[in-house]
Amino acid sequence: MRNIKLTIEYDGTHFAGWQVQKSRSQAAGRRSYTIQETIEKALQKVLQEKVKLIASGRTDAGVHARAQVANFKTSSKITPKKLIEALNALLPDDISVGKVEEAGLDFHSRFSCRAKAYRYTVLNQPHRSALLREKAYFLRYPLDMALMRKEAGHLLGRHDFKAFQASAAKHKNSIKTIRRLDISRDKNLIHIDIEADGFLYNMVRSIAGTLIEIGRGRFPEGSLKKILESKNRKLAGPTAPACGLCLMKVTY
Amino acid sequence: MRNIKLTIEYDGTHFAGWQVQKSRSQAAGRRSYTIQETIEKALQKVLQEKVKLIASGRTDAGVHARAQVANFKTSSKITPKKLIEALNALLPDDISVGKVEEAGLDFHSRFSCRAKAYRYTVLNQPHRSALLREKAYFLRYPLDMALMRKEAGHLLGRHDFKAFQASAAKHKNSIKTIRRLDISRDKNLIHIDIEADGFLYNMVRSIAGTLIEIGRGRFPEGSLKKILESKNRKLAGPTAPACGLCLMKVTY
Repeated sequence: MRNIKLTIEYDGTHFAGWQVQKSRSQAAGRRSYTIQETIEKALQKVLQEKVKLIASGRTDAGVHARAQVANFKTSSKITPKKLIEALNALLPDDISVGKVEEAGLDFHSRFSCRAKAYRYTVLNQPHRSALLREKAYFLRYPLDMALMRKEAGHLLGRHDFKAFQASAAKHKNSIKTIRRLDISRDKNLIHIDIEADGFLYNMVRSIAGTLIEIGRGRFPEGSLKKILESKNRKLAGPTAPACGLCLMKVTY
Repeated sequence: MRNIKLTIEYDGTHFAGWQVQKSRSQAAGRRSYTIQETIEKALQKVLQEKVKLIASGRTDAGVHARAQVANFKTSSKITPKKLIEALNALLPDDISVGKVEEAGLDFHSRFSCRAKAYRYTVLNQPHRSALLREKAYFLRYPLDMALMRKEAGHLLGRHDFKAFQASAAKHKNSIKTIRRLDISRDKNLIHIDIEADGFLYNMVRSIAGTLIEIGRGRFPEGSLKKILESKNRKLAGPTAPACGLCLMKVTY
């Protein structure tokens, strides 16, 4: 038996997320099937056996990934080189595989994960953009970057992030460690880069939504610390739209 | 009568180009109508009159624009602010309008144009990319950037670019002046930036295709000068695919 690790890139726009969620919302032009199903189907075709693909974590419908990691066990003898060529030939063009590697038998994409990095992108200009419509959250209001950065500092380190967890989620342990939280501007694009040892469901989008409220002046200085300490999702800002989110890296 | 100037961004992937071409090739998932038709229809709805939209030049099916310029004459009294809001509300999400300005009555998007800048983007890595599939030309072979830059130098300045004109095109005057031709690398992306006082039909894509052949080692050092001087399209490289091309700026 072998354990194969895939590094996967996808444009989440037209998929129902990585894996079926309980409440699946069907957007216009979106396929009803998931990224996981799509890759499993391609793997089955190549390997001539059914495999179960385990990812580092789910991503919602519309969320992108530059480097999602997933693994599966197989008895096939196909070489990594042949497998990557076959997958990139078979998969639809909005999913691609960047790496295929042999992993130790105890490697598990989710449980072995030590850290993940996400980027949330805001397009901050007066009018919407045709070219970035599916890759950034368009927001016309000016944002106070200095205040956003100052407030974001309160999230660094080990905290209970219950206030930034989707209200439906039922994680027993909501304590995570944010190692990096950078807010940078590149012309009209604002990037919120967050790296943590793990994330709660909707955590990045809730944090991004809250930072945007702060940047717009809707939440005063000092809010973020209060929201974090409250552990109350209702005090945080809205969940920012999926299109702005991208899973950048998974570290093992 | 007023003369209104629009600065337009579009994702050309799903359009049959700016304007109908003689030989229209119908790609899968591509609309059969053009960007010009789509904007004219939206203008008619807003202005309650038919207008004729004149662009700085056509772009082919699949070619993108960050800042195409077009103008039209109208007797409507709508303010630029109201017009831009109405257009961005009415247009499909792969076309957006960045600016609406009043222009002098003698302004003509094509004839008043002094220079245009295009960017051709190559994605140069071992495997294809889901996220960049429609915005770059994927090429797995390593490219000799130094040689490409050296050869590209021969194109700078005023020349007869007949060798880089689509063979079907019948421009009487094929003399143009290239003011800038930069080849830069940003990780796996190679950008070919070309600015000239004007371009022949398919000129950027023919130059990009020829530079790629040089970078791959298919054309030896010294080829570009010979091809240019031959004025023979058959000696140049293939026309690089449309998806890598973007109209960046039009100068008046």
